[in-house]
Amino acid sequence: MTTQQPLAVGLIGAGRMGSFHAETLARRLPGVRLAAVADPALGAARCLTDRLGCPTAYTEIGELLADPEVDAVVIATPARTHADLVEAAARAGKAVYCEKPMATTLADADRAIAAAAAAGVPLQVGFNRRYDAGFRAAHEKVAAGAIGTPHLLRSLTRDPKLADPAPIPPWTIFLETLIHDFDTLRYLNPGAEPAEVFAWADALVRPDFKDRGLLDTAVVTIRFDNGALATAEASFQAVYGYDVRGEVFGSAGMLTLGDIRRTHLTSYGAEGIAAECVTYDQDLFHDAYVAELADFADSVRSARTPTATGEDARAALTIALAAVRSVQEGAPVHLKDSRLGHTGT
Amino acid sequence: MTTQQPLAVGLIGAGRMGSFHAETLARRLPGVRLAAVADPALGAARCLTDRLGCPTAYTEIGELLADPEVDAVVIATPARTHADLVEAAARAGKAVYCEKPMATTLADADRAIAAAAAAGVPLQVGFNRRYDAGFRAAHEKVAAGAIGTPHLLRSLTRDPKLADPAPIPPWTIFLETLIHDFDTLRYLNPGAEPAEVFAWADALVRPDFKDRGLLDTAVVTIRFDNGALATAEASFQAVYGYDVRGEVFGSAGMLTLGDIRRTHLTSYGAEGIAAECVTYDQDLFHDAYVAELADFADSVRSARTPTATGEDARAALTIALAAVRSVQEGAPVHLKDSRLGHTGT
Amino acid sequence: MTTQQPLAVGLIGAGRMGSFHAETLARRLPGVRLAAVADPALGAARCLTDRLGCPTAYTEIGELLADPEVDAVVIATPARTHADLVEAAARAGKAVYCEKPMATTLADADRAIAAAAAAGVPLQVGFNRRYDAGFRAAHEKVAAGAIGTPHLLRSLTRDPKLADPAPIPPWTIFLETLIHDFDTLRYLNPGAEPAEVFAWADALVRPDFKDRGLLDTAVVTIRFDNGALATAEASFQAVYGYDVRGEVFGSAGMLTLGDIRRTHLTSYGAEGIAAECVTYDQDLFHDAYVAELADFADSVRSARTPTATGEDARAALTIALAAVRSVQEGAPVHLKDSRLGHTGT
Amino acid sequence: MTTQQPLAVGLIGAGRMGSFHAETLARRLPGVRLAAVADPALGAARCLTDRLGCPTAYTEIGELLADPEVDAVVIATPARTHADLVEAAARAGKAVYCEKPMATTLADADRAIAAAAAAGVPLQVGFNRRYDAGFRAAHEKVAAGAIGTPHLLRSLTRDPKLADPAPIPPWTIFLETLIHDFDTLRYLNPGAEPAEVFAWADALVRPDFKDRGLLDTAVVTIRFDNGALATAEASFQAVYGYDVRGEVFGSAGMLTLGDIRRTHLTSYGAEGIAAECVTYDQDLFHDAYVAELADFADSVRSARTPTATGEDARAALTIALAAVRSVQEGAPVHLKDSRLGHTGT
Repeated sequence: MTTQQPLAVGLIGAGRMGSFHAETLARRLPGVRLAAVADPALGAARCLTDRLGCPTAYTEIGELLADPEVDAVVIATPARTHADLVEAAARAGKAVYCEKPMATTLADADRAIAAAAAAGVPLQVGFNRRYDAGFRAAHEKVAAGAIGTPHLLRSLTRDPKLADPAPIPPWTIFLETLIHDFDTLRYLNPGAEPAEVFAWADALVRPDFKDRGLLDTAVVTIRFDNGALATAEASFQAVYGYDVRGEVFGSAGMLTLGDIRRTHLTSYGAEGIAAECVTYDQDLFHDAYVAELADFADSVRSARTPTATGEDARAALTIALAAVRSVQEGAPVHLKDSRLGHTGT
Repeated sequence: MTTQQPLAVGLIGAGRMGSFHAETLARRLPGVRLAAVADPALGAARCLTDRLGCPTAYTEIGELLADPEVDAVVIATPARTHADLVEAAARAGKAVYCEKPMATTLADADRAIAAAAAAGVPLQVGFNRRYDAGFRAAHEKVAAGAIGTPHLLRSLTRDPKLADPAPIPPWTIFLETLIHDFDTLRYLNPGAEPAEVFAWADALVRPDFKDRGLLDTAVVTIRFDNGALATAEASFQAVYGYDVRGEVFGSAGMLTLGDIRRTHLTSYGAEGIAAECVTYDQDLFHDAYVAELADFADSVRSARTPTATGEDARAALTIALAAVRSVQEGAPVHLKDSRLGHTGT
Repeated sequence: MTTQQPLAVGLIGAGRMGSFHAETLARRLPGVRLAAVADPALGAARCLTDRLGCPTAYTEIGELLADPEVDAVVIATPARTHADLVEAAARAGKAVYCEKPMATTLADADRAIAAAAAAGVPLQVGFNRRYDAGFRAAHEKVAAGAIGTPHLLRSLTRDPKLADPAPIPPWTIFLETLIHDFDTLRYLNPGAEPAEVFAWADALVRPDFKDRGLLDTAVVTIRFDNGALATAEASFQAVYGYDVRGEVFGSAGMLTLGDIRRTHLTSYGAEGIAAECVTYDQDLFHDAYVAELADFADSVRSARTPTATGEDARAALTIALAAVRSVQEGAPVHLKDSRLGHTGT
Repeated sequence: MTTQQPLAVGLIGAGRMGSFHAETLARRLPGVRLAAVADPALGAARCLTDRLGCPTAYTEIGELLADPEVDAVVIATPARTHADLVEAAARAGKAVYCEKPMATTLADADRAIAAAAAAGVPLQVGFNRRYDAGFRAAHEKVAAGAIGTPHLLRSLTRDPKLADPAPIPPWTIFLETLIHDFDTLRYLNPGAEPAEVFAWADALVRPDFKDRGLLDTAVVTIRFDNGALATAEASFQAVYGYDVRGEVFGSAGMLTLGDIRRTHLTSYGAEGIAAECVTYDQDLFHDAYVAELADFADSVRSARTPTATGEDARAALTIALAAVRSVQEGAPVHLKDSRLGHTGT
């Protein structure tokens, strides 16, 4: 092992998620080093590199992509920039890890996938639930036939607090929140693909923002090509905490997923039984965030296909775009619908 | 109390559910007696009356309705006969408890409701979950504002085993199984009414019966007039047991319902943690079945409106018929759709 | 079955527990009737018989025992009277069900057992947990070897509220509360017998009553002759509800018992997760109380040994008396200790 | 921050626990570096330093203690060597973190504490449960009065598998396993101290090793000076996994602790409900092991008293020695018993 250099990873985007990834790259992964950070915001990259003892900070992303010291990049910028950055990084010959969603149109997704293929670099997408021990074990059990053929599935995401709605694009609930659930439903129904989607969405948390197009509550039903019927559900505000759950029901059994308890402490008092819930700060998926970067480093080194690929990102995006169109039209949408490629989101 | 006679109840239908009700009427309810049983099947009524020490058995239902000893009737016959029997019993001046579904067309439902109103007799419907301590407490909490405004709801029913499909009419999953969930969703969203329904159903448990029209798996989404989005889900075969659950998520919290564990015993072994599930025989709703007849007796004696009325039965039926039409048309159906009144189910 | 008369049961003691048993005998058990009630308190028996439509009320217990209509008796009087009543009832030729504790000295226990044997009548004791579905299933699993050889056991009872201490004899916590746990530990370690006992007790809930000798908190450890080490624990006041739990840990696994939740409803709010607890009024053991009288009637009719015998009552009493002596002496006590027979409790 | 050097920590003992601590020191803690590893076993230290990129490996512990580069040491050697190493490290002026038990006689414990005090260096002990989020929250709730005055406590440890008994000293179950529970009981009953101890222990898992003095199953009851009665329980073999739980019951409520589930995945099949348990490999206390070294580094830097001190180690040891004597004598032992200081363990 003495001849193997650590994998040098450059981080693009020094926001909340980027900062967490930076710590993981700098400290938690053997055989990996944080080689550089790039963020257009003045001082953002420098602040992070100083704290983590990383040698290089850039305000120009292009400089990081041109840095020959950098073997691979982690993209943690706003969603609308992802596809372009994947393409640029691939052209620069870097292995690419991109936060979800990888793209917000199918044309962008196709372009990103094609760029990685042309450059012969790995492309991994940040569907972190695939790296959570519980979701992963469920996937493996379903794949092994433990519950027979899946008939009914459920995945839900409820964020603990409605962020200030101003900077949120209208279809965020589908493209950035439920995209996780769409991927989870595919992950829990391995080998099957979605065939048809029906969705409702509304501004129930903040009705006052409805005229700006912000939808904060949604229910999506999906018919898969193996007959399974799935439900995905999201809300931007669960006052009790960060609620992520899943369920797969099949011909030979059921799996349930999700635990919102903060610790194993339970209190019993005159008012009854009580326990605390997980919120963002405690990070329900802490270990999964670390595991996905470890898997990225490992798949880069071993030249194996990552667990969540660009094609997976495209498949989840297709469901999201179909859900958007279903809301717009008030009708179910077939995933073969040629118009999905042109949805102007 | 010495002057008050026990309420004399006549049972119509001596099948599985009827036999359970007979025991409740004969033994478990103070101030109530089982006065007579009627069942067209030769010997069925007599077998039950002998076992329970009840004086009178009829093979003609009309004779029971004409019996002046009988104050009230419990109808536990096949679904298709319910509306006619409600009408006949009301005309005979009997207080009426009818198993769900009270009717399978809106015209029948309206006729049954009108007959009870014209005769001035109480009409109660067997939505037993309203009498379960957990579901009832949830309803009261929602009504009291404990979770704010409901945004997302869920109700599901999974039967433990697919009955022999031969005698089952095609839309049974909506009209006899999910009818419970439709009522539960209204019960857990008090004051709101369903506005629009979208449904998918399939023969996933027994694909070989699909050509006979038997649907065994269904997902229904419902948009209520207060904006809440609800999901109802059913399967005719859960290999692990009898699975009934509910969930209400609102602006100020969430309630979850349902416990499939058979007892409070948990086993830990080399294979991990294990517990047994409830199946039909253990009767998940045993106490609720008793409580609903106790409530019937009480509402008859005190001339108060029962907890589950003919109007509640009609409202749940409307959702079921809309779900049927949604499956037929592959599109969402508005509950104002005038064609629901004519659905030929 | 037409020739079989219902079993005529006379109830002795019309207090809280007696009233519950009276309702069970009068209404909930096929093949059983409540034939008479006796209670020295003026009007207590009559009040109960009037409410339940039972023909006969006595203020003299001897009259009930002499009543030839009565086949069997249920004794639900204060503990100190039990042994005498068992003896008198047996001499009168009645089958006997006696609430726990059957006796408070070994001499009394022996006398009661001998009287039943001499008269050839069945003698059953009210260890209700043996009739709870969870505890019974645990017993059966242990007996079947599911957890191998028991090594560590636990049983606890915490009452929801400290009753007014005035009329409570000093060693009540051992003789009337923990007597349940002592029996449970034997039930969960079938075939083994207790060999040695060590106990501590204190007045922690109401230190002001300590000088009257009232102990409200206790921990007892028991060494069984198969090597298993057991703990029994009691408190007279759990502010959160009625807490009864058990645990058996063995060479091949563990069983845990006990569920204090009132219903299957769970609430999630800004404060976290919440659920309500069972208290006395909801009767954690409602079904078990009914099941034990059903078993009594059945064992009388079929002349089979009841599930909880006079010998079981004596064995649990022996542990209780050893615990009393252990507290008095501050040392472990062997169950062969000849002085247990003379403890002046 | 630029002027602050990382804390240079030397690890003594490169076994299983030492290797885990080495990774934590090398990778998981900001502001800390693994400066050296010492282990007498040829190659053990070098293997670890190579893997973690640490500059220095010693086979002589004295060399590490003499290394001026080392600010602080983590002692993870066999228990019998702990006290001597604490003393030597303190004399060398190093801040000291010592795995539990810090000592196996009171004389040794006093010597270690005195050496640290004389040298003016911090001394922290590896009671990892104090760093687990659930146990810590419970401690804080009890300290804040959330459950009133503690009346009954419980702590248990069941290891997943009986290690090969050959090298285990006879009283290991008290001195190395239950020492955790003794500390936990003090931690959950803050401000109170143990007054009296009664213990039973046996060789139930491996009766064939009993003649070598190996005890694998034990129950200890402890009376605290605030009246609280506590139980500690251990087994060397839980076939289902690594089982650590706690409970505090007080005048105003109860707290329960412990969750043995491996993930949040639950399976439902024809056999019922199932879930997997945590075993050693998954490390129930992974986060707590990291948190305790983070706390060590922080307390060294900020010159504050650590959460688990040498005095805490001595207090837990006193209970363990009293438990040993109680087993030897078959009687309860007062903690003031002057003979505890001379127990020849």
